[in-house]
Amino acid sequence: MCGIVAYIGNREAYPVVLKGLKRLEYRGYDSAGVAIINHGLHVYKKMGKVAGLEDFLTGKNMQSTIAIGHTRWATHGEPCDRNSHPHTSGDGKLAMIHNGIIENYAQLKQELIKKGHVFQSDTDTEVLIHFIEEIRNSNQCSVEEALRIALKRVVGAYVIVIVDEDNPDTLIAARKGSPLVIGVGKGEHFLASDASPIVEYTKEVVYVNDYEIAIVKADELILKNITNERQTPYIQKLDIELTAIEKGGYDHFMLKEIFEQPQTIFDSLRGRLDAKNGQLTLGGIRDEYADLLKNANRIIIVACGTSWHAGLIAEYMIEELCRTPVEVEYASEFRYRNPVVGKGDVIIAVSQSGETADTLVAIESAKQQGAIILGVCNVVGSSIARLSHAGAYTHAGPEIGVASTKAFTAQLVVLCLIGLKVAKEKGTITQQRFQHLLDELQDIPEKVATALKLNEAVKAVAAKYKDARDFLYLGRGYNFPVALEGALKLKEISYIHAEGYPAAEMKHGPIALVDENLPVVFVATRDSYYEKIVSNIQEIKARKGKVIAIVTEGDTTISELADDVIEVPAADELVAPVISTIPLQLLAYHIGVLKGYDVDKPRNLAKSVTVE
Amino acid sequence: MCGIVAYIGNREAYPVVLKGLKRLEYRGYDSAGVAIINHGLHVYKKMGKVAGLEDFLTGKNMQSTIAIGHTRWATHGEPCDRNSHPHTSGDGKLAMIHNGIIENYAQLKQELIKKGHVFQSDTDTEVLIHFIEEIRNSNQCSVEEALRIALKRVVGAYVIVIVDEDNPDTLIAARKGSPLVIGVGKGEHFLASDASPIVEYTKEVVYVNDYEIAIVKADELILKNITNERQTPYIQKLDIELTAIEKGGYDHFMLKEIFEQPQTIFDSLRGRLDAKNGQLTLGGIRDEYADLLKNANRIIIVACGTSWHAGLIAEYMIEELCRTPVEVEYASEFRYRNPVVGKGDVIIAVSQSGETADTLVAIESAKQQGAIILGVCNVVGSSIARLSHAGAYTHAGPEIGVASTKAFTAQLVVLCLIGLKVAKEKGTITQQRFQHLLDELQDIPEKVATALKLNEAVKAVAAKYKDARDFLYLGRGYNFPVALEGALKLKEISYIHAEGYPAAEMKHGPIALVDENLPVVFVATRDSYYEKIVSNIQEIKARKGKVIAIVTEGDTTISELADDVIEVPAADELVAPVISTIPLQLLAYHIGVLKGYDVDKPRNLAKSVTVE
Repeated sequence: MCGIVAYIGNREAYPVVLKGLKRLEYRGYDSAGVAIINHGLHVYKKMGKVAGLEDFLTGKNMQSTIAIGHTRWATHGEPCDRNSHPHTSGDGKLAMIHNGIIENYAQLKQELIKKGHVFQSDTDTEVLIHFIEEIRNSNQCSVEEALRIALKRVVGAYVIVIVDEDNPDTLIAARKGSPLVIGVGKGEHFLASDASPIVEYTKEVVYVNDYEIAIVKADELILKNITNERQTPYIQKLDIELTAIEKGGYDHFMLKEIFEQPQTIFDSLRGRLDAKNGQLTLGGIRDEYADLLKNANRIIIVACGTSWHAGLIAEYMIEELCRTPVEVEYASEFRYRNPVVGKGDVIIAVSQSGETADTLVAIESAKQQGAIILGVCNVVGSSIARLSHAGAYTHAGPEIGVASTKAFTAQLVVLCLIGLKVAKEKGTITQQRFQHLLDELQDIPEKVATALKLNEAVKAVAAKYKDARDFLYLGRGYNFPVALEGALKLKEISYIHAEGYPAAEMKHGPIALVDENLPVVFVATRDSYYEKIVSNIQEIKARKGKVIAIVTEGDTTISELADDVIEVPAADELVAPVISTIPLQLLAYHIGVLKGYDVDKPRNLAKSVTVE
Repeated sequence: MCGIVAYIGNREAYPVVLKGLKRLEYRGYDSAGVAIINHGLHVYKKMGKVAGLEDFLTGKNMQSTIAIGHTRWATHGEPCDRNSHPHTSGDGKLAMIHNGIIENYAQLKQELIKKGHVFQSDTDTEVLIHFIEEIRNSNQCSVEEALRIALKRVVGAYVIVIVDEDNPDTLIAARKGSPLVIGVGKGEHFLASDASPIVEYTKEVVYVNDYEIAIVKADELILKNITNERQTPYIQKLDIELTAIEKGGYDHFMLKEIFEQPQTIFDSLRGRLDAKNGQLTLGGIRDEYADLLKNANRIIIVACGTSWHAGLIAEYMIEELCRTPVEVEYASEFRYRNPVVGKGDVIIAVSQSGETADTLVAIESAKQQGAIILGVCNVVGSSIARLSHAGAYTHAGPEIGVASTKAFTAQLVVLCLIGLKVAKEKGTITQQRFQHLLDELQDIPEKVATALKLNEAVKAVAAKYKDARDFLYLGRGYNFPVALEGALKLKEISYIHAEGYPAAEMKHGPIALVDENLPVVFVATRDSYYEKIVSNIQEIKARKGKVIAIVTEGDTTISELADDVIEVPAADELVAPVISTIPLQLLAYHIGVLKGYDVDKPRNLAKSVTVE
């Protein structure tokens, strides 16, 4: 959370930074701010979205060839002008932007207050820049040296960028835990939380590693480690296109991304699935890692949010296909307790951004203990992808909408491919079933395209229920995590309290919520749990709940019971979640839009959670 | 769900059955009904609670020495007079009560309609009694014989009791899946879903087994299996007292049970924990089963609802203490998918009633596959307890309040004892830590008594937030499942949509719900997650959410941040959930009462879920 952008070079810096902030707004939009140097340091900041900052700065002299900018997701201190970034040192000469959390800020703040420092904000960030200033003054050293000393005392995660009024030709940056990409242009450099603010200017980028400090001038990029040794920057080529990060005629990124899914799922399968010849290839999981996965005693899937839901479905898939016990863990819980990870255990980390802080730190410590890590990420070159021993990218393209859609379905497809590959090598699947599932996978893009034709029908259902206070989402088996994901989408986008449950669990408490006002969404496609979920629908109807059912085309039993029915194409139960999730994405989208909310930037959220 | 009572003997039957129905009302209260024989069969039934039926029957001639009665939790067909039990045959001569679900009722109904049967209700039960009547008429056989034939075609779970106008000296009962106890008196028999309607008349009981048919006369009890072979009834002694199932001066059973916890936890520990001498004994888990548990590759905990939450805490305890991987499964999901259960895996089934249908069937099929089952149940002699290879009773006494309280804390204590026993034998715990945790366990009843003194303070908090639309409950580590349980209690009792999450997950979606109206309950006692949860509280406050925090006595940091603070006695983080859960029980209770709801009988719920 929090997006940072900085520029140094030969152009006007402010327009570059402003445009970059708009691209990064998915990371937070509680407030925005910039700092430039033009006959002295000038800092401008404003509560609210980037567009508000832009209005505020219209007509002001923003000329400068160096600038830093920040869009905030509040952690310490409420969103307001005062708590916005950049924050400045006591003498007003240093300005800093920060993404992350300084955990021991309260103690540092007490020490600094005793030394006479006065703070304008409630943030941890302001404490850090004052701390650096204090060290610089008392040690009579450079800002770079002061930063290095300061970081040794700091507990937490951060990307920071500092500008110094007295050194207007240099940006200083440092990273631990949060992501930082530097774009390398001709006589210019771009710093940002991800590549999206950079891609239209240059395709050459350097990913800064943890514990590295960057000293960035217009025509020079120096990387050092924390002990002041120079590192060679490793320049990589970006493979995203500008069009991929623009809306392309859709009202929202979310809708664009929902409709991209026939293509993105095809992309996830491309070069991997060859159903005609019964072949399946995963280039990122070969040789020793394929063997380790095949022989794993246990597979532990570590993830957060939507990716955790993909992990739950993968648990069912992999246990069924490979007969290997699978455990799915919330990354935030896994990392702090003392989980049992033994020899022969394999960890699969699932993350769209590849930067999710909890997931990243969870696998870092497991890796140190000798665990084998497979990464399933969407962003190429992201921290989790780089940290993993092996893995498979989901290839869904940049996902900008804060509520994840196409990344989720791509994760399901890739996790299914992994399960099939292992099952085949392990001999736990018949040739017939293997071929059948390859064929089913091949058909998914077309079936998803068919499901997308439900858009208008789903919109009508959305209009009918948009004013409901609460929703329940219920499913069994492979469709249980789909229910969780459907509920999460609605919660994120419409602020309606929606909750998912395994259908049978509702009788252990949640059914108390059911009355004639409560819509209950059943994910009830034809599968081996079908008869049981029909009983559950009966139980809800007996209490006058409104039933919206996602069913398989041609279902007549549930059609008679439910208030609203949405029919999706038939598919094997193992891959059905990819299809049954589509109408739930559309339902959340339309309810959010009908309620007048900004579905691409739901309140309080940020796209990738890079703080704990 | 659904309670059944029947009487045959020398007393007036109706008052016995009516009193029994009141005792069983925790199993369902959508409607109630009775049938008696007095110059012909008379059936009376009424939508609503048992008291409504009683009013309706006041002044009527209810003289009879045979009666059946039913209190319903609706599955098929809405709650209304017409769908209430008893249901009758087409000729009006047979009346039946039923607990369970006949899954293939729709098909049977079609067949019967073709043969000219006319149905008054939407229930599966009416189909079954007509089906029995049809077989009796077409085969010219006895009702008992017709029942036996019918049950061979029935798919589902049931306890049924039939009275026949033409045989007024006989009750016929059958059981599969749902519980049935028969009390044996002098010249009289009592049939019921559990022992509570029986205990004041006799302490001698017979638990009917699956696939058994009982032919019950005043002075004779005949048990047969489905192939018509006689079985010898095994008479057991009840060890519950009448006072244990009455309110004893409290407004509600729930409040009584909350306040019983210092005693019930003491009872759970009695004879097992000897902290002074560093000893721990579990009589129900000895010898080979203790060894199997010690050497388990993996422990799988299977449960539903509140018991599932106890299982989640046990996962953390057992992994920490014993270094054995633990997986916690929803019973309803575990039983239908094809989970990997290998040699050396041990299953722990957790259930208050010991009758939870999903849990019961889940372990039945696992047992058939060779798994070792340990039962952690509250009701002595219950189906799960009898099916298990070994286990430990929780000894919390009869729990009548539908929302589980004292059974949960007793489960935690017993699961902790199991973890400690295994850790000690396995050598994965130091003597010092072992002794420390024994001492901590010994202190729990007193600390729970201290926490109960918060009652008035919690009531004040309840009054402040009782009109909130939604609640979030957040915790980390051992306190994360406590948050889930706190949310479930509130949802059950107050119908407020409360949802629990691991605190770090809120940023992946649920935080979108946060605004100045949303109370967020943090379970934030001093433990190894403390600093992290303080950051999460900051994040909620930054979005103006209202924070109610459960903290350790003397906490000053969170007191400054939170809107309301409830201080509980300090305890080791491993046992802290037993204490931090107390104020959450009280909070749910008081909000429910302040909103004017019947907290002992929340709408739509039933105490033990004996249908799937």
